[in-house]
Amino acid sequence: MKVTADHLTKVGLELLQSAGVDPQEARLVARYLVAAEMRGVPTHGINLLPAILERIAAGQMKVPTELKVIADEQAILHIDGGNGFGQTAAAEGMSRCIDKARRFGIGLTLIRNTNNVGLLALYSLMAAGEGLIGVCACNGAASMAPWGGAEPFFGTNPFSIAAPGGEGDPVVLDMSTTVVARGKIRRAARLRERIPLGWALDAGGVPTDDPEEAIRGTLAPVGEYKGYGMAFFIDLVCGLLSGSRYSREVRTFHQPQGPTGVGVMVGAIDISRFMPLDHFSGLIDGHIRAIRGSAKAEGQERIYLPGEIEAERERLSRAQGVEIDTPVVKAIDGLAEIAGLSVRLEHGEVPE
Amino acid sequence: MKVTADHLTKVGLELLQSAGVDPQEARLVARYLVAAEMRGVPTHGINLLPAILERIAAGQMKVPTELKVIADEQAILHIDGGNGFGQTAAAEGMSRCIDKARRFGIGLTLIRNTNNVGLLALYSLMAAGEGLIGVCACNGAASMAPWGGAEPFFGTNPFSIAAPGGEGDPVVLDMSTTVVARGKIRRAARLRERIPLGWALDAGGVPTDDPEEAIRGTLAPVGEYKGYGMAFFIDLVCGLLSGSRYSREVRTFHQPQGPTGVGVMVGAIDISRFMPLDHFSGLIDGHIRAIRGSAKAEGQERIYLPGEIEAERERLSRAQGVEIDTPVVKAIDGLAEIAGLSVRLEHGEVPE
Repeated sequence: MKVTADHLTKVGLELLQSAGVDPQEARLVARYLVAAEMRGVPTHGINLLPAILERIAAGQMKVPTELKVIADEQAILHIDGGNGFGQTAAAEGMSRCIDKARRFGIGLTLIRNTNNVGLLALYSLMAAGEGLIGVCACNGAASMAPWGGAEPFFGTNPFSIAAPGGEGDPVVLDMSTTVVARGKIRRAARLRERIPLGWALDAGGVPTDDPEEAIRGTLAPVGEYKGYGMAFFIDLVCGLLSGSRYSREVRTFHQPQGPTGVGVMVGAIDISRFMPLDHFSGLIDGHIRAIRGSAKAEGQERIYLPGEIEAERERLSRAQGVEIDTPVVKAIDGLAEIAGLSVRLEHGEVPE
Repeated sequence: MKVTADHLTKVGLELLQSAGVDPQEARLVARYLVAAEMRGVPTHGINLLPAILERIAAGQMKVPTELKVIADEQAILHIDGGNGFGQTAAAEGMSRCIDKARRFGIGLTLIRNTNNVGLLALYSLMAAGEGLIGVCACNGAASMAPWGGAEPFFGTNPFSIAAPGGEGDPVVLDMSTTVVARGKIRRAARLRERIPLGWALDAGGVPTDDPEEAIRGTLAPVGEYKGYGMAFFIDLVCGLLSGSRYSREVRTFHQPQGPTGVGVMVGAIDISRFMPLDHFSGLIDGHIRAIRGSAKAEGQERIYLPGEIEAERERLSRAQGVEIDTPVVKAIDGLAEIAGLSVRLEHGEVPE
């Protein structure tokens, strides 16, 4: 079912407010959840609402989010997220990084004790939208073993980097350090399909094509020891150095097992310290044209820039509505009913 | 043949001096080349000497290296490498990043117009040795296509990150953004062996197990679009933003086709801005013990930390000498003879 982005935001906003989130923060969180849906990443979208409401009701997440600045010295900022919304913490952290980058050339914020931030690209894109390079990374609940290991130890620990795209959309990479997300393996298990060797390891640390074995085992790091190394260092900076939880101590957001203890890093680099932004824009425009015009692999009609598929999807979602799976619509509308709200997702359906 | 590290350094030093490199810079470069050999990465070791000497003789590389500071403002530094030694530029850039990180919490240096820097880990480890987190990245000659493409466009564009390891060695990741280096494919071609599918694409952008087809084609990015995205952004920061060459314009160091135009990024983060270094050391010690003690995959006896294999190799090389392939010994000793030097690598052989 397709729903307009505005209606999706309105439903999210009302649900969050019904749980006691104040209007301003609810608007920010709803906007980030809907942006993920619009960019075609529903795992970071409104299907996070049930977990958010459950956590707030169980007192396992604190609203309104109270950020506490632990240190604010020259180019760095250290924030305690107060076990509140990851979106609030990451957006505030990036906003202040951008200021710092303008003053010092580069700015870095570490955030401890926060929660799921949703789609990382949204924070790195904040910087790109202001003419800076933005980066973002976070740790997460254990799902990957150290290379050579068999036990979940590191999260999928994703990171993102974005830059202005000249006349076009910004360019943005947003990737996890595992080959695939756990959701893809759960889906194969539901459909009773095999998974490709290389996605996951069984509980003995041996590559498996059985999704049930994979669920009991670990996700394979991208590029074997390389993905392990990336997950290790993202955890080290976002978790250990920020004073947050790290490795096996980070809890999943999806079950109410107490505070997640997620740690986040955001950073920004001021392009204009190295060349005028206009000059950078001209160079990146030419560079993008060269990439698009380069030889294509057999059967390929286009070469995409990092983030281009998501940007096109966002435009399409804005024009034609956001595709939401029926079970998600039912779950969200069920929550609205329980909350005594009259608003329903299905009321916002875009006619075919 | 095994040669003592001291003798290897002495031979490198004399050869570099014979080419007109001044003693101080020759010592630095020789030390970095030998360190790569000691860490078991001979592709970044003394087999670079013939290419270095050829470039200097052909006037395609300038010695002594004259670094020019383009901008030195707050936390950032912008350097022109003067088409000199990459080692000199990266080491100086990191040294000044460390100072900046102490003053501003974080420091970033971009270097344009330099050459092959050798093993990236050596620069990130400089920061780790001083109690900071260090990062390093560079671009290189085109060998990877954009994902969906068929034409060499990006280099293997490696990056490295290192942190102090508490009571043990620093932890360090040093990885390229391709699945393997080109050397592994050349070796398979020499031995007339097939290569695993996934290492490379043929000239049509189709995965191949034929090393000859792979040499005419491109190296596969690690994690498909992920490695493409990483190579894209490393090139964007190190090359395009630094004002250096980028994408197809970067030249290989291994053939004298004019200045390479390599661009480099080095950065450092001051750990003590987020927690006392002692506290960090205690945490990382416990973390390392937990990783080592975690469940092992079937058939695995140990779990290694990032960089641990290389650190062990370095200790072994120091104690027992550095293993150098006979063809490399002959090539280096041939250069020494041509230069009219009396020193020979084979004179430093460690008895078995």
